[in-house]
Amino acid sequence: MTVSASVDKLLQLIEFGIHISGIKELKQLMEKVLKTAQDLTYAKMAVFYLVTDDSLELVARRNTHTFHIPDNFHEKKLIPISPNRLAGFCVLNSKIVNISAADRQGLVDTYDLEHELGLLNLQLFHSMLLVPLINQNRKILGVLQLIDSTNNEGDFIPFSESIIPVMESLASQSAVAIQNAQLSRDITSTYYETIFRLSLAAECRDKETANHIFRVSSYSKIIARYAGFTKSFQDMIQYSSPMHDVGKLGIPDSILFKTGKLTPEERILMQSHTEIGWKIFEGSDYEILQMAGRVALSHHEKYDGSGYPKGLKGNIIPVEGRIVAIADVFDALCSIRRYKFSFPTDQVFMNLKSETGHHFDPILLNAFFMGLEEILEVKKKYTVSES
Amino acid sequence: MTVSASVDKLLQLIEFGIHISGIKELKQLMEKVLKTAQDLTYAKMAVFYLVTDDSLELVARRNTHTFHIPDNFHEKKLIPISPNRLAGFCVLNSKIVNISAADRQGLVDTYDLEHELGLLNLQLFHSMLLVPLINQNRKILGVLQLIDSTNNEGDFIPFSESIIPVMESLASQSAVAIQNAQLSRDITSTYYETIFRLSLAAECRDKETANHIFRVSSYSKIIARYAGFTKSFQDMIQYSSPMHDVGKLGIPDSILFKTGKLTPEERILMQSHTEIGWKIFEGSDYEILQMAGRVALSHHEKYDGSGYPKGLKGNIIPVEGRIVAIADVFDALCSIRRYKFSFPTDQVFMNLKSETGHHFDPILLNAFFMGLEEILEVKKKYTVSES
Repeated sequence: MTVSASVDKLLQLIEFGIHISGIKELKQLMEKVLKTAQDLTYAKMAVFYLVTDDSLELVARRNTHTFHIPDNFHEKKLIPISPNRLAGFCVLNSKIVNISAADRQGLVDTYDLEHELGLLNLQLFHSMLLVPLINQNRKILGVLQLIDSTNNEGDFIPFSESIIPVMESLASQSAVAIQNAQLSRDITSTYYETIFRLSLAAECRDKETANHIFRVSSYSKIIARYAGFTKSFQDMIQYSSPMHDVGKLGIPDSILFKTGKLTPEERILMQSHTEIGWKIFEGSDYEILQMAGRVALSHHEKYDGSGYPKGLKGNIIPVEGRIVAIADVFDALCSIRRYKFSFPTDQVFMNLKSETGHHFDPILLNAFFMGLEEILEVKKKYTVSES
Repeated sequence: MTVSASVDKLLQLIEFGIHISGIKELKQLMEKVLKTAQDLTYAKMAVFYLVTDDSLELVARRNTHTFHIPDNFHEKKLIPISPNRLAGFCVLNSKIVNISAADRQGLVDTYDLEHELGLLNLQLFHSMLLVPLINQNRKILGVLQLIDSTNNEGDFIPFSESIIPVMESLASQSAVAIQNAQLSRDITSTYYETIFRLSLAAECRDKETANHIFRVSSYSKIIARYAGFTKSFQDMIQYSSPMHDVGKLGIPDSILFKTGKLTPEERILMQSHTEIGWKIFEGSDYEILQMAGRVALSHHEKYDGSGYPKGLKGNIIPVEGRIVAIADVFDALCSIRRYKFSFPTDQVFMNLKSETGHHFDPILLNAFFMGLEEILEVKKKYTVSES
């Protein structure tokens, strides 16, 4: 490699580092790593393994071979981290492994190739580079496997030794980015589960179920997506909608758990759960909690102005409240159905449709029906365990 | 700059990118950016500005000048983003500004130098490089200002044009890292506020105050730090301890709000809030919520085995429960004090000390007293508004 070629590759690496640092989505991140590794090494195939417990898991693969790759070439998704597997050896020794077709016999002697993932069919393999993904604290997060380097004429050649420091840098950059993406995913999941469990605890007073909260949250997200809202809005409504009824915490047991019909005074007190919910989130600087406040306050408003607590009309009702109203009522109607076997799903849809422009925003109800297939999938998946 | 010097700088940039991607703490991150920028440009001073609303805020500065810098050299922390300020011009035009002492007169004519931060005393300034921090979506997050480049002999020289592409890369790397750190900080803050508001809503049933929850959470973190636990453990107890009483959600109003003495049966039911709290978090895969469950279950256990619900003894009680017990009781004792003016702080400390080995873990109580200064600061700051 000439010095100017080396400068080019280093510049490419810097660009790559900036690019992947901005990617939060693991799949997209791994795809970018595989593509850049192929561009830098002219390899026909690139495979991404992540360390999971005691194994390496094949999580992404990118193939630019023009010929057919047998289905069993990477059949096993999990391989043990053991010294007689190439990728295992690479992890255990924190070391790049660079091998070519000429090394085959030596490999067969050294490694347990009978079981070696990706090497089952030796005819396909000309050269291979295994690069451990080591983060800034020297922890190994995975392995990048590159197969079949080529020259300008497209002939298969061994991986050049001069590319190894470049690949080491790329691997470190990737390891840190992968770790950040995993961390960000974990924080987000923890956040959602916390909202979920605390909301459930609040709702338990009202005998609601975990599945109800989860379904309303998922339905709301689907409606938002089909209504054309941004990914960020969809996430926000997913996170804020589980908290729509936390204001019920402020309702006395005597009203919340009353079996008979509520008196008009009791009904007014019961309806104040919307305003109590608002107060719980009032004054927050964070968008999700501001939205949670709006959802809590407005999810019982109706499009024609006949709802509570304020009798707001049409688009004056916060859009997130209009969305959660549909999700919440749909779920309530389906739950009634579970106890009355004769109440068919069609009837539920008829009920919803009859309320277009009355209880519900017509455009959002339309989005609900556009997303119906996904909504029914969620319903099916998260209803079973309640029976 | 020779080609090999350029390769060295590129390698340095790649290392830098890997290093800063792993830093989540803003202050530490900016310090590293300033140091690297100085190393690469041989500048005597480096300043970090972040865009906040309509201004640039001076957030970090690093000076290796051996002579004294006047206090008013960077007196103003906020400068407007306007075209007649150098840093403002740099932001508005998304462009590097490279100026030397020779350009002074031109600068005086072009810019409103009377108000220019950092240029008040023109005698001090020999050369300056302003680099906009542009992220992967072309958004400007701030400006990096470098002052007074030097050669090997230590003479002041203009900034070399050849360093500009290197600084552009460094600025992009820094912008993405800064953005990730800000995002991570925002998610964490949102998470804490959500836990806080939902726990408060739950506690409100028990007439507890927002400040009580906040204080217990802060005290617990301080105790954990002085007891030598990791930063990660400290964060976890900060986040999980606000939820220690959410199990009270499951206690009927008639018991929770009873003004007289509880009957033995009612007392047992009341004590079950620990087990209800455990159930709320049971089975979670997330460490914070697992800890929240342990705290809820065990914060009324006593070191000598006389607590509830299980009468656990000594180190069998989860350590986080032992920590929150001290924080919770200390706060309760201080709250009683607010109503009985004659109850002095010394008496509170005596009470706590008399319980060492009985109610409290001696080692953790010792950590409490080691952190007393910080604990009293929190107490002072978050008690006022309750009076």
